[in-house]
Amino acid sequence: MADFELNILGCGSALPTTRHLASSQIIDLRDKLYMIDCGEGAQVQMRKMRIRFSRLNHIFISHMHGDHCFGLPGLISTLGMLGRNGDLFVHGPAELGDYLDSILKLFCQGLPFNVRFNPVNTEEHTLVMEDRSVSVYSIPLKHRIPCCGYLFKEKQREPHIIREMIDFYQIPVKEIQYIKQGADYVTPDGKCVPNHLLTRPAVPARSYAYCSDTAYRPEIIPYIHQVDLLYHEATFQETDLPRAHETFHSTAKEAATIARDAEVKRLIIGHYSARYDDPQPLKQEAVAIFPNTTLAKEGMKVNL
Amino acid sequence: MADFELNILGCGSALPTTRHLASSQIIDLRDKLYMIDCGEGAQVQMRKMRIRFSRLNHIFISHMHGDHCFGLPGLISTLGMLGRNGDLFVHGPAELGDYLDSILKLFCQGLPFNVRFNPVNTEEHTLVMEDRSVSVYSIPLKHRIPCCGYLFKEKQREPHIIREMIDFYQIPVKEIQYIKQGADYVTPDGKCVPNHLLTRPAVPARSYAYCSDTAYRPEIIPYIHQVDLLYHEATFQETDLPRAHETFHSTAKEAATIARDAEVKRLIIGHYSARYDDPQPLKQEAVAIFPNTTLAKEGMKVNL
Repeated sequence: MADFELNILGCGSALPTTRHLASSQIIDLRDKLYMIDCGEGAQVQMRKMRIRFSRLNHIFISHMHGDHCFGLPGLISTLGMLGRNGDLFVHGPAELGDYLDSILKLFCQGLPFNVRFNPVNTEEHTLVMEDRSVSVYSIPLKHRIPCCGYLFKEKQREPHIIREMIDFYQIPVKEIQYIKQGADYVTPDGKCVPNHLLTRPAVPARSYAYCSDTAYRPEIIPYIHQVDLLYHEATFQETDLPRAHETFHSTAKEAATIARDAEVKRLIIGHYSARYDDPQPLKQEAVAIFPNTTLAKEGMKVNL
Repeated sequence: MADFELNILGCGSALPTTRHLASSQIIDLRDKLYMIDCGEGAQVQMRKMRIRFSRLNHIFISHMHGDHCFGLPGLISTLGMLGRNGDLFVHGPAELGDYLDSILKLFCQGLPFNVRFNPVNTEEHTLVMEDRSVSVYSIPLKHRIPCCGYLFKEKQREPHIIREMIDFYQIPVKEIQYIKQGADYVTPDGKCVPNHLLTRPAVPARSYAYCSDTAYRPEIIPYIHQVDLLYHEATFQETDLPRAHETFHSTAKEAATIARDAEVKRLIIGHYSARYDDPQPLKQEAVAIFPNTTLAKEGMKVNL
C-alpha cells in the first residue's frame, strides 16, 4: 500500500464529456484513504482503480456544485450495502449538511453506520481535521459560491532505529521509545551514545494542496508555500480569460503563476473545461511559467 | 433517427462493478426521447452513446432506490447548463417529489427551465402520460418499497397515402386527411374509390414494457400481454432463490416465466447482481423457458 499517494478519480469540469469524469481524488496516506470531492461516478471509478472502500473514513467537499458532490449519495449507499460499521466523516461548507440530511432521510433508512458532518469555514484557513498521520487545513478560495481547498500536512514520523546499534549496546526495549523521540543512550557504565548514532532520520513530512474551483487568488500563497504537490484548477486557456473571470475559474497560466510564486515542488492542473478536446495547450501555457507541471488524468496515481 | 428504439444505458444492480452501470434506459420514439430510471452515471453514458440531451422531455422513475435515480441531479444540472428552456417532466412515486425539491433548492437556483413532477400511483395500472406518439402506463410491481414499471404503447399511426392513386384521381388536398382516417373517395362524377386502394396500412403500433425491480409477480401479466418487447429484471439465478425472495427481486427463470405466460414477443433481462461475473448462466436459465431472451448490456440499442 502507498505511503502518500494521490489518486485522480476525475478531473473534468461540470459539463459531462466522454474524456473526463467529474472532480474526485483520493489521498492514500499510511494505509488510510481521504477523499477530496466526490463527483458523479466516483464510486465506479474507485472500483476501476481497485481502491478499497473500507479504508475510507474522511471525505472533504470543496463546494456545493454538483460536479463536486453528486457522487456522495451513491457512495454512502454503497458503503451501507457493504456493511460498514465505523463512522464516516464528511467535511464541507455548511449547506452540505442540508444535502446530507435530505439524502440520508430519503435513501438511507437503516444505514449501518453514522455519517458525521463537520461544517467547514470556507472563509478562513483553519484546521479541519487531524489524526495520527495528517492534519488537514482549509484553503479559502474565490468562487461563485462558498468554496475552499484543502491542505494535507503529513505529521513528521519518528526516526528509524538502527537495529545493529541497539543490539551492539544491548539497549533495553523500554529505552527505544525515548531514543525515537531524540534521547541519547547512557550505558550502564556511564558512556553516552549520542542519538544520531542510534537513529536514521525518517523521510521529511510531505504536504499536498488541492485548490479547485477558484479564480486566481494569490492570497492563498502563504498557505501552500513550498508544498510538495499542488493540484490547482486550470479550467481555461489564457485566450478564454474573460470567461474565466466571469465564472470565477483560473487559466492554466494563472495556476502556474500561483505554483511559481508559492515555490511549490510540483504542479498538477485539471478541471478542464469541456470546450477543449485536448488539454495539451493548457500544459504548454503552464509549463512556460512553471516547468514542473503535469496534466491530471483519470486513473493517475502520483507518489509524493 | 430511430423510429422506436430502446437504448440500454445501464443494467447493473445496486452495488457498483466495473462491468455494469446502474439502471437507466432511453426510449427513442419518433424523434423524442423518454428516459426510464436514471442511475448514477446516466448522463455520461448518454454522451458515450451519442444521445442528444435536447430531445429528452420525460423521465420515468420506477422507485426510490439510489441505483435508479442518483443520476437525476447531475442530468438536470447539465440540462440547465446547456440552456434548456422547455419543461422537463419527471414521473415517479410521491417521495421522488421531495428528492427533486431538495435538489432543485440546493443546486439549481436559476435553472432556466421548469421541472414538473408528476406523482405516479405505483399500486395501480394507470395512464401516466400521453402525447401524440405514445401512451405510458404504470405497471404495479412488488418490491421492498413502492415501485412500478412502465408500459409504452405506441399510438397507431395513420395509413400511408398512395401518391400515385391520389394523382390519378386528382384528389384535392383537403380530402387527404379524411382518407388517412379511413374514408373512401367519391369522384366528381360519383364513382366511389374504396379506401384500401388509396392507402397502405402503417406499421402496427408497438409496445414496450419495463419491469424492474420486482419479485415474481404474475399479476402483471394482463398489463404486458403480447408486448413486442419486455425488459424484466433477473437479478439472481434460481440457485439464489432465497436471496431473491428476501430482497424482492426475480430470478432469470421467473423473468422468463412471466415472458412466456404473457406471450410477449421478446424478452431482455438485466439488473444483474454484482455477485455474477458473467451473466451467461442467467441467459441459459431464461432461454430454457422463453427462447427469445437476450442479455441486456450497456450501450445496447434494440429496434422494436
